[in-house]
Amino acid sequence: MALLRSRVESANDADGPFPLNNLPYGVFSVAGDAPRCGVAIGDMVLDLAACEARGLIDAGGTFGEPQLNGFMALGRARWDVVRARLTALLAEGAEGELPLVAMAEARLHLPIRVAEFTDFYASKNHAFNVGALFRGTEHALPPQWTHMPIGYNGRASSVVVSGTPIRRPMGQVRGEAGPEWVPCRRLDLELELGAVVGADSRMGERLGVEAAEAMIFGYVLLNDWSARDVQAWEYQPLGPFQSKALGTTIGAWVVTQAALEPFRCAGAERVNPLLPYLQEARPGLYDLEIGWTLNGQVMGRTNYNLMYYSSAQQLAHHSSSGCPMRVGDLLGSGTISGPAREQTGALLEMTAGGKLPVMVKGTPRTFLEDGDEVGLFAQAQGEGYRIGFGPCTGRILPARA
Amino acid sequence: MALLRSRVESANDADGPFPLNNLPYGVFSVAGDAPRCGVAIGDMVLDLAACEARGLIDAGGTFGEPQLNGFMALGRARWDVVRARLTALLAEGAEGELPLVAMAEARLHLPIRVAEFTDFYASKNHAFNVGALFRGTEHALPPQWTHMPIGYNGRASSVVVSGTPIRRPMGQVRGEAGPEWVPCRRLDLELELGAVVGADSRMGERLGVEAAEAMIFGYVLLNDWSARDVQAWEYQPLGPFQSKALGTTIGAWVVTQAALEPFRCAGAERVNPLLPYLQEARPGLYDLEIGWTLNGQVMGRTNYNLMYYSSAQQLAHHSSSGCPMRVGDLLGSGTISGPAREQTGALLEMTAGGKLPVMVKGTPRTFLEDGDEVGLFAQAQGEGYRIGFGPCTGRILPARA
Repeated sequence: MALLRSRVESANDADGPFPLNNLPYGVFSVAGDAPRCGVAIGDMVLDLAACEARGLIDAGGTFGEPQLNGFMALGRARWDVVRARLTALLAEGAEGELPLVAMAEARLHLPIRVAEFTDFYASKNHAFNVGALFRGTEHALPPQWTHMPIGYNGRASSVVVSGTPIRRPMGQVRGEAGPEWVPCRRLDLELELGAVVGADSRMGERLGVEAAEAMIFGYVLLNDWSARDVQAWEYQPLGPFQSKALGTTIGAWVVTQAALEPFRCAGAERVNPLLPYLQEARPGLYDLEIGWTLNGQVMGRTNYNLMYYSSAQQLAHHSSSGCPMRVGDLLGSGTISGPAREQTGALLEMTAGGKLPVMVKGTPRTFLEDGDEVGLFAQAQGEGYRIGFGPCTGRILPARA
Repeated sequence: MALLRSRVESANDADGPFPLNNLPYGVFSVAGDAPRCGVAIGDMVLDLAACEARGLIDAGGTFGEPQLNGFMALGRARWDVVRARLTALLAEGAEGELPLVAMAEARLHLPIRVAEFTDFYASKNHAFNVGALFRGTEHALPPQWTHMPIGYNGRASSVVVSGTPIRRPMGQVRGEAGPEWVPCRRLDLELELGAVVGADSRMGERLGVEAAEAMIFGYVLLNDWSARDVQAWEYQPLGPFQSKALGTTIGAWVVTQAALEPFRCAGAERVNPLLPYLQEARPGLYDLEIGWTLNGQVMGRTNYNLMYYSSAQQLAHHSSSGCPMRVGDLLGSGTISGPAREQTGALLEMTAGGKLPVMVKGTPRTFLEDGDEVGLFAQAQGEGYRIGFGPCTGRILPARA
């Protein structure tokens, strides 16, 4: 697929994140007015609430709401109709005035009301590397890892939008003479992609992989900030808890499944066949370059297509017990790490648990320091256009003792 | 404190669960009309929405809502005023007609919109017994157990009200020749008390134990149904996931902290001092007999006051990273088990992992079978009155293959 040319000239930049092919949804406000839904196009935001008010588009009034949940709940058929209509409205040569706002003037809000947040663990490199650091190489990869997408329930209330400062947490950690209460000393990021669920399922209903995929509205960048010293002390046997509750940052723009469709591809090679409930008829990953920066320096860069499980497989597994899923559920992919050091998506891995510092702007570093700013980026490269995700940043504030 | 006599005669029964001293809140409907808030008194439900409509009580209209969240969000001062007003309205000798509905005519609904569900692990007996079964006696009690309330995020969408049937889940389990996809073979209950959070906290705000306690609105019975074979295969390293997502049943009546105040007492003896952020100025447990039945036979019976951590300590720990808490958060105590076999709150413990069957109505049994009905009960014994919680039941439906 080639670039679709837009009447918004900045959307025709071959290197820009938001061409007409993308059309990611978000929630914005201008100068303190009411947050409503918008779509990014070039360096502008199309005000979808105003479009509805003018009769240019029909989403049942949901675009006036301060999150995308109402629109998502309308269902896939409506998503498709609205996307086609937006494509026509914004195409080169289309006429009539549009309510466009300069992105630079817009304040971006959390795009979804997060119903529940689940975090998975689907990069084999990451699972092995982190497992080896926590448990040694022999027990690094759990025995069920190649048979099911391992995940755990995270905390939805601490999901924040890009740009929100992240406070270094206090926490209980292992000390030489017993546990200690200290500011986190091993604060880390996790480079992830988050899948946004756009439909409900009923309790007792199990989703096949195909049905699960049809429920995914889109994807956001996701940084699952992690307090590694707290995690090491707390996580056995019931999993991470306060080490992952200090904040999870997501990007402000939800890139739809439709926009990513041209980049669909297979993931990592299977070690063993999956049980039928996890098998997918077509590949469910995307050829998507993804990476992160620390204080502006690119630190890690890899591809989402090395993941072992797709979001659709994760969602199918999530419902395998009959667990009901909801509009607004957010599913983290798990940290995305390639095999090489410069492909890792967390400092824990990149520095081998703090033992091998990395150079950041000339200074050797291990974990995050106060004032550090982490940014995530991702892009799919089409012919003459890119699908970008916009920024996903957070700066570390000092702990409150 | 002695029995407070009520104008509702059935509330003056010394053995009844709902005397005037109790006044638990719930949500009910009659003959398919709109669910609204009510309070249990004897064998009746006082229609709080109708009380508000008649000007008998003021909760800002929140009693007309189909869950207690709106009322809870009004804050502790209003909880106290409303409780005093209800006590006066329902007292013996009070006059004026009241909108009372026979409990037998009422359908009871999920009393709260569960914001997020967190499950803890605060009975030392249970933690040791289950740890020994999963990991052997040497590693039974995790090293941090006596230093922090271990908990994990559960799934809020699968919390259901007493009486809702529970479907035996399918799941992935360890098999001799690799993992298998089977109906759960080791379906279990967990006897717990759930604390209902009635106030928000801000992100980055840490709650002291006292402040945390002031945010707890009340308590419900809670059965955290568990698929033990699924759990054993999936739970390392990130904790239980689908094994705990098949359903969590809570009682329909939220017993307020105010009603339990006369029964406040200390919990289990401390093995070591706690870090200051977990220390409590006054004991935070309750002298509350609690137990469970299988097909009507009492199986286990113990006391909530043997728990090692109070809900207030759990909530303080939950916010220790700065994690924001929300009105409607539900915190499971963890399975409540005493040291003796007949005091255990789960079949896994009671049968030593299925190796020592128990007799149920003359038949040896290990885990739950299709058609089984589990019920939980709890009561605090005052002078001439009891504080009860009402039923918390669920019957097992066969798996859908």
